[in-house]
Parts: sequence; C-alpha cells; structure tokens
Amino acid sequence: MNALLQGYGVPIGYADGKRASPTEALSYARAHAERFISELMDFVRFPSISAQPKHASDVRQCAEWLAKHLQGIGIERVHVVPTKGHPLVYGERLRSRGRPTVLIYGHYDVQPAEPVDEWRSPPFDPRVHGDNLYGRGASDDKGQLFTHLKALEAWLRTGGSLPVNVKCLFEGEEEIGSANLTRYVDRNRDALAADLAVVSDMRILGPDRPAITYALRGALSLELEVYGPQSDLHSGNFGGAVLNPLQALCEIIARLHAPNGRVAIPGFYDQVRQWSESERKYMAAVGPTDVDILRAARAERSWGELGYTLYERLTVRPSLAVNGITGGYQGPGVKAVIPARATAKLNFRLVPNQDPQQIEKLFRTYIAQITPHAVRTEVRASLKAQPVLVNRQHPALHAAATAYREGFGKSPVFLRSGGSIPIVNTLQKQLDIPTVLMGFALPDDNLHAPNEKLHLPTFFRGIKTSIHFMNELGGSEDYDH
Amino acid sequence: MNALLQGYGVPIGYADGKRASPTEALSYARAHAERFISELMDFVRFPSISAQPKHASDVRQCAEWLAKHLQGIGIERVHVVPTKGHPLVYGERLRSRGRPTVLIYGHYDVQPAEPVDEWRSPPFDPRVHGDNLYGRGASDDKGQLFTHLKALEAWLRTGGSLPVNVKCLFEGEEEIGSANLTRYVDRNRDALAADLAVVSDMRILGPDRPAITYALRGALSLELEVYGPQSDLHSGNFGGAVLNPLQALCEIIARLHAPNGRVAIPGFYDQVRQWSESERKYMAAVGPTDVDILRAARAERSWGELGYTLYERLTVRPSLAVNGITGGYQGPGVKAVIPARATAKLNFRLVPNQDPQQIEKLFRTYIAQITPHAVRTEVRASLKAQPVLVNRQHPALHAAATAYREGFGKSPVFLRSGGSIPIVNTLQKQLDIPTVLMGFALPDDNLHAPNEKLHLPTFFRGIKTSIHFMNELGGSEDYDH
Repeated sequence: MNALLQGYGVPIGYADGKRASPTEALSYARAHAERFISELMDFVRFPSISAQPKHASDVRQCAEWLAKHLQGIGIERVHVVPTKGHPLVYGERLRSRGRPTVLIYGHYDVQPAEPVDEWRSPPFDPRVHGDNLYGRGASDDKGQLFTHLKALEAWLRTGGSLPVNVKCLFEGEEEIGSANLTRYVDRNRDALAADLAVVSDMRILGPDRPAITYALRGALSLELEVYGPQSDLHSGNFGGAVLNPLQALCEIIARLHAPNGRVAIPGFYDQVRQWSESERKYMAAVGPTDVDILRAARAERSWGELGYTLYERLTVRPSLAVNGITGGYQGPGVKAVIPARATAKLNFRLVPNQDPQQIEKLFRTYIAQITPHAVRTEVRASLKAQPVLVNRQHPALHAAATAYREGFGKSPVFLRSGGSIPIVNTLQKQLDIPTVLMGFALPDDNLHAPNEKLHLPTFFRGIKTSIHFMNELGGSEDYDH
Repeated sequence: MNALLQGYGVPIGYADGKRASPTEALSYARAHAERFISELMDFVRFPSISAQPKHASDVRQCAEWLAKHLQGIGIERVHVVPTKGHPLVYGERLRSRGRPTVLIYGHYDVQPAEPVDEWRSPPFDPRVHGDNLYGRGASDDKGQLFTHLKALEAWLRTGGSLPVNVKCLFEGEEEIGSANLTRYVDRNRDALAADLAVVSDMRILGPDRPAITYALRGALSLELEVYGPQSDLHSGNFGGAVLNPLQALCEIIARLHAPNGRVAIPGFYDQVRQWSESERKYMAAVGPTDVDILRAARAERSWGELGYTLYERLTVRPSLAVNGITGGYQGPGVKAVIPARATAKLNFRLVPNQDPQQIEKLFRTYIAQITPHAVRTEVRASLKAQPVLVNRQHPALHAAATAYREGFGKSPVFLRSGGSIPIVNTLQKQLDIPTVLMGFALPDDNLHAPNEKLHLPTFFRGIKTSIHFMNELGGSEDYDH
C-alpha cells in the first residue's frame, strides 16, 4: 500500500454506485483498441492549427467534435467555451463523493504543418504504418489527451462510475501561448477547484522507459523586425550605399550568442538558479545521455553552452532559438533586391528563476544598443510562460509512479523537460494545486516537425497508466495536496 | 554637324525608297501616343516572370505577342527562337543599303512581383495614374524596349523605310542571367553582325537630366544553404543542444562584411581597378550626389565602404547584398522549431577587373573556412555577369548624345550604373561591337520593387530620342566602329 492510500477509510466501490475494478476497465480498453485508434484518427483529421487564422473554423469544429466525444463517453455538463481566440472545451463528472477531484488538461490545437512537402503522408490525413499513427497532433497533444478520455470511457462503460471526480479542460491555444485559458482560469477559480491536475503533453525516455516530468522551462517568444529603406530596392542600383535590413538582422542575431554558446544579452544569466551537485548527479543518473539526445535529434553534432551536458543545456540552462527568418526574395531563381524589411521569430527557453517579463526588458535594451544606425528595429513579444517546478515528493507523483509501473511494467524516472506548457504555472498559482506531468510521447515522435507520429503501443500503455492512475488516486478518501 | 556625320556621302533618302524626315516620324508618334500606351499596357499585362517556373507559359505567350507586334510594325523575318529556357524574339529590317546596322537589344521578362501585397494596384493589371504607368516591367524593360519599337513604327509608317538597318533581339531571361542568349549569340555571330548595339535598360538622372551609361557592374548570384539536423526539431526540446542552421547562417552572413563596410572575403578587392583623380572628379561633377541617391532610395541613412561617395560605392566599388533569407517558420504566430536548414540568396556586384568565377572561388573558400563545425554548408552559383566599360569617345556615343539633346532638350551626361546587364559583355566580346546604353528609366521607377512605374513623358521623350538616334546613325554612310 503506497503513501497515497494511507488515509484510505471507505472501501472502494461504496461511494456512488458500483465501481468497476481496474481489471474490467483494462479489458474494455483492450477489447475496443481498434475503435479507439479510428476515433483518434477522426480527431487528428481536423487541421486545428491555432497559429493560422485561416484555420480558425477548423479549430472550432475540432472543439465541437471533442465536446461531442466527451458527452458520448459519459462526461457531463460539457460545453464549448468561447474566448477571444479559439474555444475551450469543458466537461466534468463529479459523482464520486469523497474522492479527490482531478483536473485533466490537454490541448486540441496543433502546430502548423510546414514544411508540408517534407511529410511522407499528408499531415491531416492520419495513417497507420507499422506501430505508428502519423499525423500532425497525433502525439502533441491529441493522442496523449485521448489516453485519459479512453481511460474515463473504460471506467464508465464497465462500472458506470469513476474512482475519482474529474474536470476536463481542453484548450485550443496551447501552441500560441494559452492567453485565453490563463484568463479563463483566473476568472473561474472556484468552478475549477480540484485536488490536482494531470497534463499529458510531454515525452518519456523510450517505449520501455517511462518518466514523470517535474520541471518545464519557461518561454518567451518575440518577433524582431528590421526596417531599412521605405520600399524594396534594386540591389544593383543601390547595393553598397544603403544598409540591407537582412544583413543588419544577421549581424544582430549573430550578436545574440557568445562564442562559448551562451546567450550574449547582458544580465541574461543573473537570475538563473544554480543546482546542487546532488541534483546534477540525479539528472546524470536518470536523464538521457548526450548520445540519446543527439539520436533523438537526428543530429550529428552537439552545440551549446560549455560546461553542461546536453540534458542540462536542455533543462536547467536557458536557451535562445531562431525559429524563423523571412525577408527579401524567397522564390526560385534570382531577384536582385534589397528588401525594405526583414523579420526573425525568436524563442527563449527560460529556467528558474528567470522571469519572461524581465528577460523581455533585457532583450529590448540590448537590441536597441546593437541595432546599426542605418536601420530601425522593432520588437514584439507574443508567447510568455513561466518556468515550472513540481515537488518530486508530492504523493500525487507517487500515485503517478505506481500507475506507470502498472502501465509500462517499469518504474518511471523523474525528468526535466526542455519544453514549456504555459498553463501549468497558472494551475499551480491560481488553483494552488500540483500538476502531474504524465507524458506518453516518445523522443522520436517528431513533435513540431514533419511526420509527427504516435507510437500506438505506448498510446495503449498510456490508457492503462491513466486507468491505474485514477484507481490509485481514488483509493484515497481525503486526498491531501 | 557632329563627328558621326563627317563621313557622310549619300544624300538622305536616296538609299532604298523614300526616307521620311524625323519631323514626320515625330508627328506620327505624337498623333498615336494614346495607342502606344494602350499597346504597352497589353505588353505589361503578361506576367512574364522568368525566375518562376509557374509563369513559363506566360513568358512564352509574351514572346509570341511581342513577335506579332514586331511583324505588325513592319519588321521582317520575325521569329520566336526556342531555347533551353525561355524563348528569344528576333526580327530584322535590312533594306537600308549602305547604312549602319543597329542591333536593338531588350528583354521582355520581368522581375517577380513579390511582395505582392505592397503594390497599390495589381502588378500585372497596368494602370495610368497621373503621368505614370504602373505595373511590373513597365520600366524594366518593357517600356524602354518599346521606345525603339515605336520609333521604328514611326519611321516605317511615315516614309516606308528606316534610316538604318536594324536587327531586333529580345530575350526572356535577362532577370535570370541571360545564359541562353549568351549561347545564342556565340552560335550566331554572323547572323547577328552589326555596327553597334543599343540597349535601353538603365536609368537617367531625372526627367530633365538625360544620361548615357558607359559602365555597368558585373554580377554574381549565389545561394548559400546551411544544413543542421536531419529534420525540423522542437525548439523547446532541443534548443540549446544543437546548432540552429538559421543562427549559423546569420553568423556566417555577419562575417561577410567588415565593420568599415567592406566585404570581408580575403582577396575580394585584389583585382579592383583604382580610378584616377580626374575620373573621380568627372564622376563627382556629373553623377548623382549622396542626397540624390538617398532620395531615390527613399532611405534616411547611407551605409557602405568608407572613403567613397555613394555614387562611387554604387559604381566603381563592388558590393554584396543579401537578396533573401528563408528558414524556419514564417507564418503568423509562433512555431517553436529549429529548422533543418536555412538558405540565403546573395548577390555580388563586381567592378573591373574582378572576375565572377574568381570571386566565386574566393567566396567558397571563405565560407568553408567560417562554417561552424556543427552544421554543413552548400554554395550554389547561378547568375554571372562580367563588368562592362564603354569608350566614352566612341562616335556612336556622340550620336546618342545628339539624339538625347533633341529628345530631352538637354545634353546628357556620361554615367556609370551600379546594375548589370549580362549580355552587354557578350555583345562586346563576341560581336566586337560597342553598345550604346541609352536608358529611359527614372531613379524613382521602383525597379525590382513594388509599384514599378514608367514615367510617360519620359517614355515619349525616349521615342523621340530613338527616332533622332536612328536619324543620326543613318546620316553616316560608312559608319565606322
């Protein structure tokens, strides 16, 4: 009996109606595996790309499909919540009196599919090849979100009740910064009250290497635009007499990193938390090796801040990536032009105790300082997310560990992630609840990249893990957070 | 009587049939001005963008229209010449026995219209506003080419013959390097034999400031591609551990210029010809001032190689421009990605005695040397053009000066251009004839930029100048090159 169950006082099944055993729920999941995949394919078929305005109605239709699906499996009070941006989907099932309430978070929006021509099959025409389901969002996050829905369905269709109370909160703006969800959570603290949240939107180490994420990096996305001449100019007639905004942009970006791989913005590292030797040793013991990371990246050579392992560079050290540059002529052949402007999309990943607001200020100051006189620059901030740390000792994480052991046949390790999930910090701060970061993505799932896929055996282990997780949580009558 | 006419021995009009006077030709041009504009608009309507494969059939249709037009005005043996790329249009009228033969060169292909959303009217739906005709190619080079066709028409419709023999050679690949025209000229030297060539594809200083161009810069266009990871990566999961090709590209490009504005490639200036004080004084006396150039560029601040005027930087000094960069996510909003690769289009402008082949070698060597270890680079050369110098003392240039005086009411100055016309060097070398660079574009015509336009009063002065130019050349029986 684990720590979570120690407060247990009421026999399982006596609360509200009959409660099924995990065994029945698991059998149900096994029996309906084919249908689960086919439903997930329907889900993936929506090009719910939140970043691209032309897909706004696809995002809405996806939300409506998801709401209908929730209703279909027995979730109650389901509604599509309009926002200033893309809608939220909410639903709950609160009939398990005396049991803990779990807020299940996920996102049904997906990354853009570009570069589309590098996909081996169309990004929104999901296909199964071997053990994998290919499609944009198959892993991030439709497939991972779906593990919990199918676990809920398995419980409800076998026993008619759940071992826990659930509130499901799915958003359509995770990939663009969750601004509207943050506002929604702020305004609906009471309605969203729960004992813990579970988020499945991260990676484990491999099909047989489950992991619980206990740290996320923060994020700050910015656009940097350089303005030169009022209009594009002929580069023969004017090349050499006016500063080219693309050249200026390159010179600015080149000054964002020092030769030692560190970000060169003054003050950038001032708030970065230093970790103890024992934490670094734990990370080295359980985390991916440099080789693991390079293999997952399918990159031949590493790069970055000297003095840290790749896993450290990706998790306890901040970084800055250029996500895109556009300017001038990009078509085939030649166009002799000096463009009027050039733009870069930049993305910082931040660590405790860096604050996105503060980093934005430092960035703006530095850019103003290094902008060549002959051009003008503008900085626009978009996405901001605080770094997140979850207490590894929390009993909810023990319940998750037990569930993984049941689901994967192996104990999970505790991992830091280099990614960011903007809402996790909000859940911690506004609802004052811990978040269990229970991922089912694999390192080679091609997240945010062409040929994104979901490993189906891992998907089913995810469902199994979720069934066990609910069972573990439900074992505790007065679940203490 | 100018130098060209001193060898004159046969009275005008006695060669082949009646020859009209320039006065009659000029009256004809004035009387048909409206129709000329409407025909030019038909010409501009073809999106004959040579760089973009999807416009290949538009380019061909434009060639066919041009051929038909040549036939219509009385040019003979007109044919569309297929090439490996876009076709050439050839036609001739060789009935003026004993008179010089002029090879009239022009190009009917145009630059891409991008960025299309910055055009105030659609680039291929030409429109007249005030004194200007707006549309891609209106000035470069359809309008300028058209001045000569309308001059020929005016001569032929009034007197039935021309004061000179003409060979018209119009290409559809000037904007992409003239590779097929170069081959065609090499193989058809005899058929193309002429006494001089005239090219109208350059600028004068203003509506009342005619100019004859006597120098063109050479050109070398290259693509530089940086390869990083095999596939796009999530910048949260991998940012800080692998080198971002966009970052590497920026760092490479930042190292192509030194802080003093010079190109930083070792050996780049070794072959650059130094000009005498008297040449620099002449340039300062007749050329555009820094203020003129900044005004034409609509740029607030200048930039470039220290120690030279802007006019010198644009003409007697080489330069390197970044014409475009593409890589990563360029759509709206945010996509947290490390792209697998990033590409820049680069364009050198070269001066005597730099050689494009040699500069390409120096560039490749330098790029190999400065490429960061964690990425791979590839260099692809496309367009190459030698720099050009025309002897200012040549009698053909005197004839042109006289013609400009008649056409514009002002004597032209002799100018250097920062641009490149790949074929001019070929004409000089293969046909051993001088080229008169007789431009009718204005500095604010937005060449290669959105809202390209043709100044219609200058267009008609161009027709007048061409009528007089033919008259001047025709005055000389044994035109001596």
